[in-house]
Amino acid sequence: MIGEIIAIGDELTSGRIVNTTSVLAARELFLLGHTLRAMHTIGDDAKLIGATLTAAIARCDFVLVTGGLGATTDDLTNEAVIAALGLNGTVHPGVRASIESRLAKGERIAASLSKLARLPAGAEVLDPECRMAGYLLRHQDKPIWFLPGVPPQMEILLRDKVLPALQAMDAGRTVPVSRRVYRTCGLYEIEINRRLQPLEQEDLAIGYYPVGSEVHVSLTGRQLAGGTDDPRFQAADAFIRQSLGDHLYGVDEDSLAVAVGRLLLERGLMLGTAESCTGGLIAATLTETPGSSRWFKGGVVAYANEVKEHLLGVDPKLLTRFGAVSGETARAMAEGARRHLGCDIAVAATGIAGPDGGSPDKPVGTVHLGLAIGDTVTDRLCRLTGSRRHIQEKTAQTAIDMVRRALLAR
Amino acid sequence: MIGEIIAIGDELTSGRIVNTTSVLAARELFLLGHTLRAMHTIGDDAKLIGATLTAAIARCDFVLVTGGLGATTDDLTNEAVIAALGLNGTVHPGVRASIESRLAKGERIAASLSKLARLPAGAEVLDPECRMAGYLLRHQDKPIWFLPGVPPQMEILLRDKVLPALQAMDAGRTVPVSRRVYRTCGLYEIEINRRLQPLEQEDLAIGYYPVGSEVHVSLTGRQLAGGTDDPRFQAADAFIRQSLGDHLYGVDEDSLAVAVGRLLLERGLMLGTAESCTGGLIAATLTETPGSSRWFKGGVVAYANEVKEHLLGVDPKLLTRFGAVSGETARAMAEGARRHLGCDIAVAATGIAGPDGGSPDKPVGTVHLGLAIGDTVTDRLCRLTGSRRHIQEKTAQTAIDMVRRALLAR
Repeated sequence: MIGEIIAIGDELTSGRIVNTTSVLAARELFLLGHTLRAMHTIGDDAKLIGATLTAAIARCDFVLVTGGLGATTDDLTNEAVIAALGLNGTVHPGVRASIESRLAKGERIAASLSKLARLPAGAEVLDPECRMAGYLLRHQDKPIWFLPGVPPQMEILLRDKVLPALQAMDAGRTVPVSRRVYRTCGLYEIEINRRLQPLEQEDLAIGYYPVGSEVHVSLTGRQLAGGTDDPRFQAADAFIRQSLGDHLYGVDEDSLAVAVGRLLLERGLMLGTAESCTGGLIAATLTETPGSSRWFKGGVVAYANEVKEHLLGVDPKLLTRFGAVSGETARAMAEGARRHLGCDIAVAATGIAGPDGGSPDKPVGTVHLGLAIGDTVTDRLCRLTGSRRHIQEKTAQTAIDMVRRALLAR
Repeated sequence: MIGEIIAIGDELTSGRIVNTTSVLAARELFLLGHTLRAMHTIGDDAKLIGATLTAAIARCDFVLVTGGLGATTDDLTNEAVIAALGLNGTVHPGVRASIESRLAKGERIAASLSKLARLPAGAEVLDPECRMAGYLLRHQDKPIWFLPGVPPQMEILLRDKVLPALQAMDAGRTVPVSRRVYRTCGLYEIEINRRLQPLEQEDLAIGYYPVGSEVHVSLTGRQLAGGTDDPRFQAADAFIRQSLGDHLYGVDEDSLAVAVGRLLLERGLMLGTAESCTGGLIAATLTETPGSSRWFKGGVVAYANEVKEHLLGVDPKLLTRFGAVSGETARAMAEGARRHLGCDIAVAATGIAGPDGGSPDKPVGTVHLGLAIGDTVTDRLCRLTGSRRHIQEKTAQTAIDMVRRALLAR
């Protein structure tokens, strides 16, 4: 199915809020094999909302509209839709009853609240209890979903209502689309492209998506009767896995941290961290994963040298001789973290994230990683570029991948 | 000036990449007083790119296009522009020379590289050395900027070329727009709205932007000859600052971490952290700020109870008696962090981020914060809702704000 998303609100076009709901929807739709042609973000401007909507309906199989369904004066979606599609506005009895049930006894519905119940004629409200805003409208035989802009509500209705309905429509086709996403790190897009070139053929499309310092590869089959079980899809899957080797860390929505957590659990090992330039980002990235307490013990953010000495037991002579940003210090931090945190593996990062602090010898972006696993301690030098945040993120990712590779080798 | 942004690429419409460049541009434009009517994200589809561009040009004073300027087959921006605006494609001599200068001796330009030099007639390349892609095209007397999709390059050209040019055009108007953004935390949008209502009047507009658990308030003057120095703007500024009190933590682009860092520097104090449920996110948020080593000493991510005992000196009897998620433990963690890290102030967080681990007594979202400043140790209970990541982010922000308020009171 081919669709477009329209997100509405001045808070988005002013850059005050990052539009996370459209990205979430885009990712879910992509994984299910649908194609988004465009995602629009429109300010609170009823005419432009209407024009964007009618253009999208003309081009697509479905449209998803988010935001502007609330009670304040800048919520214009319903009004814009009524005008643009030439519909009547009607009071939805269910929504009205839901609002009334929440009023104090004897209280009358304020004008702002009654606005919530005034929907385009034909709107099918998505929440059976009519508490969350959001409805489905069929126009020119195409479904148009209107969802709240509030991320948690939008997510619930997307997953419970929109995606199942799209899948049901899709199943009506003779051959559904099948798709798998392979997540890699440590290989350039161009190298992956070279390795997978033999695979490119009709009906089996390969997509390349650089994501931060990872590259995600999608395999899409459009005419395979057996879906992902089809022998041709299976053969392509095997070829991709072999070509990517240990650069492939996960499939579909597994993050690098999830992959590392699974390896740690399988081996019954606990991980710890020692961070200087990343300032806690390695640990924060790992613990974003639910259940991480089963394989992550803790970490030390050793920003000051004093903390490196006192909490990680790094020898002050080492710091004087080689400097805080050195392979020697990275190894000592990793070894100290393993011992002081009482874990099986520890990873450490020390470097210069910038924008200040660089020198000709050790420019901004110089990062040393250390890894202690059992009695073995190793280190690795990375030379990174970009903004402070980018260097911190890239360091955290490389450190987590260093743990993954060490686990694979055991 | 009124504009639109068009970001191009399948990696965006598939949700594999979050479109950060459009948000950055939107924020910068907003702060300078410009208005974005819409931000579009279009897949690699030359016809739709062209149609979106011509519609935007017809509606706006300027258009910003990002992405699709590279050398691979899915980079379609130049081709789409040439077709949509009826222009000729020409080889840009500067870009061609720049590519040639990077080739090995005797090597010829590959077809994919020569594509980089084929620009719409009239394109003014933005990088004087022609190394970065990106150009300005004037069409129907309106500027249309084409920038690379790679965030660091896009940011450089936006700040160095696009924004100054827009400001120069804006200065030609009789009365430029003046705008200031007030960043607050700890107050609901509706309460801020109530406090600032007396201020709402013609020519001085107030905007409310909930951003995570903060609310940003914008003050915009459209007809003030003196700009932000105008007495009316100054009076409104004073009223807003007074109404928001210590909920106002910064103006324009100051983050909460920057505000806390400034207070610490002024008072000559060093900060430390002790984190359980946030897993390093408090420290990572603080150290995202350049120069944070001048006021941040380090932290302990005490995910396992063992780490709370060994690195923070939390009494195991306390953990048994009150549990790891308790005000008592939060206080002991803060006090332990202050002592063991050797800092002046320490903030601690322990709680249940979910999705598992909750109980009727301590449901998911139960978070205790502790603060040790000198010999005084306090704690605070928060009951949060939402996803694991949301609870972690909200906890980190509340913890950092707790430090800010303690510093203000000194």
